[in-house]
Amino acid sequence: MELSSRQLKEFDEQGYLFLPDCFSDEEMAVLRAEAENIYKAERKEVWRESSGAPRTAFAAHTYNEAFRLLAHHPRLVEPLRQFFGEGVYVHQFKINAKAAFEGDVWQWHQDYGTWARDDGMPEPRAMNISVFLDEVMAINGPLMIIPKSHQHGTLAAGHDKSTTSYPLWTLDQETVTRLAHEGGIVAPTGKPGSMLMFHGNLVHASPPNITPYPRKIVYLTLCAVSNHITRLTRPEWIAHRDFAPIVPVADDALADYARAHRVAAE
Amino acid sequence: MELSSRQLKEFDEQGYLFLPDCFSDEEMAVLRAEAENIYKAERKEVWRESSGAPRTAFAAHTYNEAFRLLAHHPRLVEPLRQFFGEGVYVHQFKINAKAAFEGDVWQWHQDYGTWARDDGMPEPRAMNISVFLDEVMAINGPLMIIPKSHQHGTLAAGHDKSTTSYPLWTLDQETVTRLAHEGGIVAPTGKPGSMLMFHGNLVHASPPNITPYPRKIVYLTLCAVSNHITRLTRPEWIAHRDFAPIVPVADDALADYARAHRVAAE
Repeated sequence: MELSSRQLKEFDEQGYLFLPDCFSDEEMAVLRAEAENIYKAERKEVWRESSGAPRTAFAAHTYNEAFRLLAHHPRLVEPLRQFFGEGVYVHQFKINAKAAFEGDVWQWHQDYGTWARDDGMPEPRAMNISVFLDEVMAINGPLMIIPKSHQHGTLAAGHDKSTTSYPLWTLDQETVTRLAHEGGIVAPTGKPGSMLMFHGNLVHASPPNITPYPRKIVYLTLCAVSNHITRLTRPEWIAHRDFAPIVPVADDALADYARAHRVAAE
Repeated sequence: MELSSRQLKEFDEQGYLFLPDCFSDEEMAVLRAEAENIYKAERKEVWRESSGAPRTAFAAHTYNEAFRLLAHHPRLVEPLRQFFGEGVYVHQFKINAKAAFEGDVWQWHQDYGTWARDDGMPEPRAMNISVFLDEVMAINGPLMIIPKSHQHGTLAAGHDKSTTSYPLWTLDQETVTRLAHEGGIVAPTGKPGSMLMFHGNLVHASPPNITPYPRKIVYLTLCAVSNHITRLTRPEWIAHRDFAPIVPVADDALADYARAHRVAAE
């Protein structure tokens, strides 16, 4: 999969690119089932909401074969390699649950703010590429982004340790209001298998999910190899330390795995 | 304004009716400005979120002329008089703020559950008719409703006194999941001046508002006069005790008021 010059231009201007229908139902069904199993496990990589519902699972690509294939998938790796003009490595890998009824808010923030402050990442030459495991609807806690906000660089932020179970460097209301006045707010929605890539400085958030519909999204943070982090303060399963470039698997590797591990239709 | 037989049939089946463009920008601008002033006041009728932001203001029609005109407006009163086949009175009058960034959740509930349990209202012959003061978007905490859920009568509920600053008889996750499986979930969105009427037993909720866009909605609960409440336990500014039928004002009364009290363009 190669991005067109029109798509690269759109990304530069808007700070994100939304690509529906990147993965098949079959590929997503197996990842959904694996994710639900991962959330059931009591392990340090699985973080929970204050209610006990799963919030996010880190580093599943290091211990789960299906997610290992996703982390090495050419449909994710190639566009970012193309964008950065060099190899990329996995800086972070999260499966965010946004569980039915209990998925809590992620406050307004920029990701690069955290990568720079906590991990000493030199430049915003890393970004998230996310894959919708469930259908993301307007009503089930979609990711909200502020187009063009990446053009403002890294903004001042405060370390919010109290709103949720996950500490985050968050932006104040005045800043978010100003940026939304310029760029608006969009919440890309779509079927499982849709993909969203967004700039490390793009301001984003997501509201709680009060519906019966879970909204799982995998976030791969891929970083240009030459831009690897320099401060190893967070655990290695949150901010990875293997800076070798990803060698992609075959394009049909995940589909093959899905066929070999078919899950019952839902 | 008279509802067509098609609209009455749709209401019977779905439990709600959404009517865009019922009031003009001019009419809504003056109500928005009055509502913001009301929220600033320290009075018992104005309830706040735990953050201090306004949550709801009760009974503004009893002390504010613009909202008095709205509570007597034929575009609200006539459809309900037509629906119930008799005069209606104001059982409750709320301006729900869903403030920018701070507006909190309203959990899944039925309104008639509260009117029956707390106020001794004999039958669900009352309903909400709501008017959007701000634009209601998918992203700023819209009202979510479960179509057809009114057909199940009054469901078992628990009294939730802890989730928000407002105690509410709420439904459990299993019930909401079952109803949503049957009817889906819709979140009507639209410009200021849109109107939504919904059955007293229609299950509804609204998520927190994490955007910079406030989302004020006025909820008039109008009750058939012969169905007035019988248990006077809640304060009279929450559950009114004047059971005389509303005598509507002229259709242009609010527009005239708006012209005489023009607010600066936003």
